[in-house]
Amino acid sequence: MPKISNKGLEMPESPIRKLVPFAEAASKKGRKIYQLNIGQPDIKTPEAALDAVRNHNIEVLSYSHSAGFDSYREKLAGYYQKSSLPVNKEDIIITTGGSEALLFAMGSITDPGDEVIIPEPFYANYNGFATASGVKIRAIQSSIDNNFALPPISEFEKLISEKTKAIVLCNPGNPTGYLYTKDEVQQLADLALKHDLFIISDEVYREFAYEGAEHHSIMSIPELAENAIMVDSVSKRYSMCGARIGCLVSKNTEVIATAMKFAQARLSPPTFAQIASEAALDTPQSYFDDVIEQYTFRRNLLVDGLEKIEGVKVAKPKGAFYCIAELPIEDADDFAKWLLEDFEDDNETIMVAPAAGFYSTPNTGKNQVRIAYVLKKENLERAIEILEKALKQYKLQK
Amino acid sequence: MPKISNKGLEMPESPIRKLVPFAEAASKKGRKIYQLNIGQPDIKTPEAALDAVRNHNIEVLSYSHSAGFDSYREKLAGYYQKSSLPVNKEDIIITTGGSEALLFAMGSITDPGDEVIIPEPFYANYNGFATASGVKIRAIQSSIDNNFALPPISEFEKLISEKTKAIVLCNPGNPTGYLYTKDEVQQLADLALKHDLFIISDEVYREFAYEGAEHHSIMSIPELAENAIMVDSVSKRYSMCGARIGCLVSKNTEVIATAMKFAQARLSPPTFAQIASEAALDTPQSYFDDVIEQYTFRRNLLVDGLEKIEGVKVAKPKGAFYCIAELPIEDADDFAKWLLEDFEDDNETIMVAPAAGFYSTPNTGKNQVRIAYVLKKENLERAIEILEKALKQYKLQK
Repeated sequence: MPKISNKGLEMPESPIRKLVPFAEAASKKGRKIYQLNIGQPDIKTPEAALDAVRNHNIEVLSYSHSAGFDSYREKLAGYYQKSSLPVNKEDIIITTGGSEALLFAMGSITDPGDEVIIPEPFYANYNGFATASGVKIRAIQSSIDNNFALPPISEFEKLISEKTKAIVLCNPGNPTGYLYTKDEVQQLADLALKHDLFIISDEVYREFAYEGAEHHSIMSIPELAENAIMVDSVSKRYSMCGARIGCLVSKNTEVIATAMKFAQARLSPPTFAQIASEAALDTPQSYFDDVIEQYTFRRNLLVDGLEKIEGVKVAKPKGAFYCIAELPIEDADDFAKWLLEDFEDDNETIMVAPAAGFYSTPNTGKNQVRIAYVLKKENLERAIEILEKALKQYKLQK
Repeated sequence: MPKISNKGLEMPESPIRKLVPFAEAASKKGRKIYQLNIGQPDIKTPEAALDAVRNHNIEVLSYSHSAGFDSYREKLAGYYQKSSLPVNKEDIIITTGGSEALLFAMGSITDPGDEVIIPEPFYANYNGFATASGVKIRAIQSSIDNNFALPPISEFEKLISEKTKAIVLCNPGNPTGYLYTKDEVQQLADLALKHDLFIISDEVYREFAYEGAEHHSIMSIPELAENAIMVDSVSKRYSMCGARIGCLVSKNTEVIATAMKFAQARLSPPTFAQIASEAALDTPQSYFDDVIEQYTFRRNLLVDGLEKIEGVKVAKPKGAFYCIAELPIEDADDFAKWLLEDFEDDNETIMVAPAAGFYSTPNTGKNQVRIAYVLKKENLERAIEILEKALKQYKLQK
């Protein structure tokens, strides 16, 4: 039998998906599961986006431009300009989800054996994209004790070598919910300029900043124009995860020209999803105001609820819709599996994402879980209640 | 300024797209261009597919399963079973176009430095996917003199080494239109088994076989089950290039499990496009009969027309909707550019794809072009007429 590639063998399994078989088995037993494990919002997709697709008048569903619809790129540039970001149509390549933008960015600036530095915990699929690109992730630990703020710049400098090509950020952070301050973003920019590095900034949660906190985009720093690559997506902003539309944004014309070669090889991003995404740009501010209000409420509900459980420590998120909680357990992998296999309260249980999968340093974050607060009030309240009961029972059994 | 990766620098520019700026300039001058250069059919997308999207009742456009809709995979397996191919739901991963299936296949079975063998001329984007994966393509020339039939197996054996991981096929062939015989497919299967190689078979044109010729899928050879990876797509079959839905198919459970890790990293294929693709499976046979009749007519029109032009040699295609023509010129790149920049007949011209981009051996196929017969009768006739006039004038000027 011919052999799988080393790359294929090394590809990490998604930490979020590997519990799925246990969840399926639990469902089969008729158990209700509150999913705190994935960032799939229950928020309704804007009608304008859904209607645009309903009203399509396509006769031949043909390829679009490899960079995406011209009209969409133009309008999307306008969206960034409203946030005072100097983004023009030419700086944008529409991609199949933020995922493809990350792959294009990695491919354009790294070769196998190169390294990127990422504060951990980080979005687990960065591991997959790095492995697929043959790139090594050098992680710097951030801490739950200061809500996962930026680690000292000196820690980054220690890891920088000839092989270092970029620093990868997620801002606001998945899984941490941390929103980098203006000063932190500037510090990273100074570091990138000093060492001639790229910064790949994943800003897919840019609209999700709470209590009036301001989001500081990597694109807001003029002197960083040649170094900055922004990754964005419609998935979370408009609750359109299934559209699979994102974008890569850079003022560096070489980066755009190179990423375009990757874009041309895969021909074009999906057409129906572009129609929906372009229409979504007309979503009124009131939609976001409602969504932010909803998430702020849920965040407060979750954080307050978690803080009341004995032995639970939680980092209060300022953005996105996740938080990392430290639980009074040793192994969150085991706990998460146990919740699905062996626990039930009134035939209900919860599913959480063990946080170890968001760290690349082995044996780190083992007592932490990532919780997505994408459920409505009653369900979130019930989920917290189940967590509290489960922790008590787990402690007794182990 | 930070540096682009070597990989990025080496990524080939699409040979089909690099003429686009010249075409845009010609269009600006008000020139009408008959596009023989791209495989974008003018055939209407089946109404069932378009209507399914119009009638969607989505409220939250959420992620689908990373392997695609369960219902779609089930129904798609049934589609292959109708062609007597032993494909089950579990053997299928739905991808974002055939492009992504090729990337997943490459990633699952090759590491940087590995090699794959491909008969040339071949689909130009294989170059891009190979470069992106750090894989070297070893090409074996097929010849216009026998319509680009399979080169002798001894030629493949000469190139096989420790580094060889797979043979990549396109059947029926883009850009050649060649349809491999049962015997040829069996020869390749025997070779793959002898040397423990994978065969990646790109069968996106599988429905496009003319004059009752039979398509022989790599999946039809039971003893090759562990070695065979089929790539397919809805793009051409249903004239749905803009959907961006394809699939990777294999009976090798390790291949599927590995490709699934790549699939999970990018989360899911596009939802609207899956809705359209699933509905497209209900397309009646009469649609295909009409399409095949149409393409057979166009093929005959094109081949007959080309054969009448002095000095033009053409390989008669048995499948897909392309043919390679050898022209009485030295450099098709120059000719193709000249057609757009310097030539017009009644303010009209044509766009062709220089075939050199479909060869990986340097300085090969320089006097050949790929012509897609995706235009309707009048346009195709007029395009052939323009080609004849252009060749005469080009000869006089050079």
